[in-house]
Amino acid sequence: MGEESKRGVTIVVFSGELDRALAAFNIANTAAAMELPVTMFFTFWGLGVIKKEKGRVGSGNWMKRMMNLIDRGGAGRLKLSRMNMGGLGTAMMKRLMAEDRMPPLSEMIDLAGQLGVRMLACTTSMALMGLDEQDFIPQVKGFVGAATYVSNALDSDVNLFI
Amino acid sequence: MGEESKRGVTIVVFSGELDRALAAFNIANTAAAMELPVTMFFTFWGLGVIKKEKGRVGSGNWMKRMMNLIDRGGAGRLKLSRMNMGGLGTAMMKRLMAEDRMPPLSEMIDLAGQLGVRMLACTTSMALMGLDEQDFIPQVKGFVGAATYVSNALDSDVNLFI
Amino acid sequence: MGEESKRGVTIVVFSGELDRALAAFNIANTAAAMELPVTMFFTFWGLGVIKKEKGRVGSGNWMKRMMNLIDRGGAGRLKLSRMNMGGLGTAMMKRLMAEDRMPPLSEMIDLAGQLGVRMLACTTSMALMGLDEQDFIPQVKGFVGAATYVSNALDSDVNLFI
Repeated sequence: MGEESKRGVTIVVFSGELDRALAAFNIANTAAAMELPVTMFFTFWGLGVIKKEKGRVGSGNWMKRMMNLIDRGGAGRLKLSRMNMGGLGTAMMKRLMAEDRMPPLSEMIDLAGQLGVRMLACTTSMALMGLDEQDFIPQVKGFVGAATYVSNALDSDVNLFI
Repeated sequence: MGEESKRGVTIVVFSGELDRALAAFNIANTAAAMELPVTMFFTFWGLGVIKKEKGRVGSGNWMKRMMNLIDRGGAGRLKLSRMNMGGLGTAMMKRLMAEDRMPPLSEMIDLAGQLGVRMLACTTSMALMGLDEQDFIPQVKGFVGAATYVSNALDSDVNLFI
Repeated sequence: MGEESKRGVTIVVFSGELDRALAAFNIANTAAAMELPVTMFFTFWGLGVIKKEKGRVGSGNWMKRMMNLIDRGGAGRLKLSRMNMGGLGTAMMKRLMAEDRMPPLSEMIDLAGQLGVRMLACTTSMALMGLDEQDFIPQVKGFVGAATYVSNALDSDVNLFI
C-alpha cells in the first residue's frame, strides 16, 4: 500500500449553517467530479443539513422534540453564520446565488448523491437529538459511529472539519 | 518510512464551546481507543476547555485578568455555540446527554488522559491571555509552540482544526 | 512518489474573524519558516481577510455593494468571533498583542508573503460577493476555483479548514 493507493476526501460536517454547508458540498462535489472517493460525516448541528424538510419533529422526550422544533433543519431552512440579519442576509445570499446561476444547496446535495458522495449520519448525535433514520433525506446512505469516520479518514488524503 | 509508519491524529482545538469540545474529544477518544497516537493542541479560546475550574483568574495586567473573569473556562462552564438561550439550551443538552448515558465533557477529558491522548497547550495563546502552567488541569502534558504542532501534524494521517 | 515527496500544508480560510485569521497565519507562517510549501485558499467570509482596506466597495448590483459596505473587510477591520463586545474586546486583544510584542495581523500577512506562502482567492466566492482581482492586497497571487484547492490538498500532508 504505497501513497498512490490512498486517495480521497473526508469531511466532518459539524456546522448547521448555510454558508458552511455550501462550502462543504462545494469541496465534496469538486473532489467527486475529479473521481476521488468522498465521504461526508454529518454530526451535531450538521445533522440539520440532511434532515427532511417536511419530516416529523424528531422523536423522544419533550426536550428532544422542542430542540427539533426550534432548529427544524432541512437544506432550505439553514441560515448564514454571519449577516443573517433576521433572515434578510440569508435571503439576499440565496438571490445572489440564483442570479449568478449557482445551484441552491438542495441541488448541490442532489448532485453529490449522483456523483457518489457517501453521506453518513453520526448515530451518537442522532440519539442525542431524538432523530431516526426516517428523519433524513434518501441520499444519506449510512448511519455510523465515530470509529467508522476515523477509519475512513485514515484511508484518505484530505480530511476536513467544517 | 512508508505509509504504514505514519499513523495518527492531531486536533487543533481553537474553539471554546461545549459542542465543539465534545466533538473534538469524541474523535480523539475514538481514535485513541483504536490505538492510534492522538495529539490535541489547545489554542486561543480552546485553552478554556482545559483550564482548571477552581483556578486563579489568570495573571498579568488588568485586561488579561478581566478577560479571564468574563470567560472563566473550565470544562463544566462551556456553553453551546448555538441554542445556548441564556444557558437553558446548554443545560438541556447536558441533561439529554445524561439521560442517554453519555459521559459529560469532564469525564471524556479524564478518559482521554487514561487513553494516552497527548494534550498540549499553545504557549503563544497562554502569554496573550495571561495564563500559566498552573492554570490548567493535570492532564495537560506539554506547553509548546506552533512549530511543535506542525511537526506532529506532518507525522499524522488525520489533522483537524476544530 | 513515496511519502517523503509529499510535504506541505494547505489552509482553507473560510472565516472572516480576527482570531481565526490570526490562527491561520500563525500556522501558515510557522510551517513556511520550517521551509514547507504552504497554500492558503481564501473563500467566503475569508475573502475579507485579504481585501484592501482602502478599496472600492466591490462591484455588481446593489445587493453585492451593500454586502461589502456592511462587511468591509481588510485585515485591520476584522473582529473577534467571541467577546467582541461592540469592538471593546477586539481593541483589548489588539492592545494585548502589542504589549506582548506580537505582530498585528497585517504584519503577519506581510511576513507570509515574504516567506512564500501562496495566497489564493476563490473565484466562485468572488463572483458571489461582487469582488474583482483589484479588490485584494498584492500578496494574493492567484484567483482559482475549488479544483485547484483540491489538487493542492492532495499533494499536501496537512490540510486544515479554518
